[in-house]
Amino acid sequence: MGEIETRLKDLGLDLPVPPLAVANYVPFVVAGDLVFVSGQLPLEGGKLVVTGKLGDTVTVEDGVRAARLCALNLLAQAKAAAGGDWTRVRRLVRLTGHIACTAAFTDQPKVMNGASDLMVAVLGEAGRHARVAVGAPALPLDATVEIEGIFQLG
Amino acid sequence: MGEIETRLKDLGLDLPVPPLAVANYVPFVVAGDLVFVSGQLPLEGGKLVVTGKLGDTVTVEDGVRAARLCALNLLAQAKAAAGGDWTRVRRLVRLTGHIACTAAFTDQPKVMNGASDLMVAVLGEAGRHARVAVGAPALPLDATVEIEGIFQLG
Amino acid sequence: MGEIETRLKDLGLDLPVPPLAVANYVPFVVAGDLVFVSGQLPLEGGKLVVTGKLGDTVTVEDGVRAARLCALNLLAQAKAAAGGDWTRVRRLVRLTGHIACTAAFTDQPKVMNGASDLMVAVLGEAGRHARVAVGAPALPLDATVEIEGIFQLG
Repeated sequence: MGEIETRLKDLGLDLPVPPLAVANYVPFVVAGDLVFVSGQLPLEGGKLVVTGKLGDTVTVEDGVRAARLCALNLLAQAKAAAGGDWTRVRRLVRLTGHIACTAAFTDQPKVMNGASDLMVAVLGEAGRHARVAVGAPALPLDATVEIEGIFQLG
Repeated sequence: MGEIETRLKDLGLDLPVPPLAVANYVPFVVAGDLVFVSGQLPLEGGKLVVTGKLGDTVTVEDGVRAARLCALNLLAQAKAAAGGDWTRVRRLVRLTGHIACTAAFTDQPKVMNGASDLMVAVLGEAGRHARVAVGAPALPLDATVEIEGIFQLG
Repeated sequence: MGEIETRLKDLGLDLPVPPLAVANYVPFVVAGDLVFVSGQLPLEGGKLVVTGKLGDTVTVEDGVRAARLCALNLLAQAKAAAGGDWTRVRRLVRLTGHIACTAAFTDQPKVMNGASDLMVAVLGEAGRHARVAVGAPALPLDATVEIEGIFQLG
């Protein structure tokens, strides 16, 4: 557990307060040893900080930043699901990333690397995951990226 | 079990006959205690009753109605997966909703609330779920909403 | 195991070398008895062979071919996850197919049948799966189809 917190600090990352669900759903559900986390948006300090679409007003660099923020929020949810105890987070199983984009944009993987790289930087080998990256014509609140994740508790 | 049936009746809801899959797939697969339900469309009496896109010809109100119908079909599949015995449905784990929309539409969460609210109205606390809501440029048969769900048996 | 290999041969199908992930993720993750396979593209001999969108430059027939290729790559990953032993692959649980398309295209199910039919042809009853088929405005590398799958080991 201390190891993960140290890595976060070394990376200069502050784990956010895990965002609450704002309707009749919850941020995550634990079923057996799997944690299904709701789709996370690029929120920072509770505010949506990257909006718009790739191929239009958003650069790949900003898309990567959006994906990193989604990943940080996923990590915050995973930690909460584990009762704050990182040693109970066995691994990240899968990430599915939805990238708001125009019909001409085909670099969804570059954008998702923002999330994948962060997961491996923080969780090490346990952060290597199966991945799905697809485009979307529009996402909630005009978010640039939405990522859902499945973790395994140990 | 009686409790869920009573709630459905109190809400004036008739659970549909669970739609059959019309190709080489099945409406749901049970793996361990998880039930993976195929994407459900807004079918009523076997007919697709909400078509078209949000931000174009479909209002948020009609989108909500579509999401409710998808949720009813998901419940019908969950009941079938449990052999008709609601006491075996431990909880709803996750819903992923795909909302057919234009690039300008960003109220996917409002549409998905039609499904989320219905699940909690029918299943109570066991209906609170992890959630993903994203846009799609087009869906099968011009459906307005498609929702897939994972339930846990108890 | 021999049975599956015989079916593949009878169908004239060569299982590809399972594609590697090209970033900080992996082709599949095993969690308990579930195998989560990353989104597979229509790769043949390591090359993307079907690009573009349905409703635009790609015919349904070519979409079906793309979905078949995705399915073959999913099978290759499942075999690898089972250590090469088909008797350990209990069943296919779910396929989620993302079909690159215009806003006017609504035959996503016909395209996905390319994958569903192949799965049942190769795996028999164990190949019947829950299914999700949705449109996407654009996919990685301009791929026409991306399909992710969950298998159960036995």
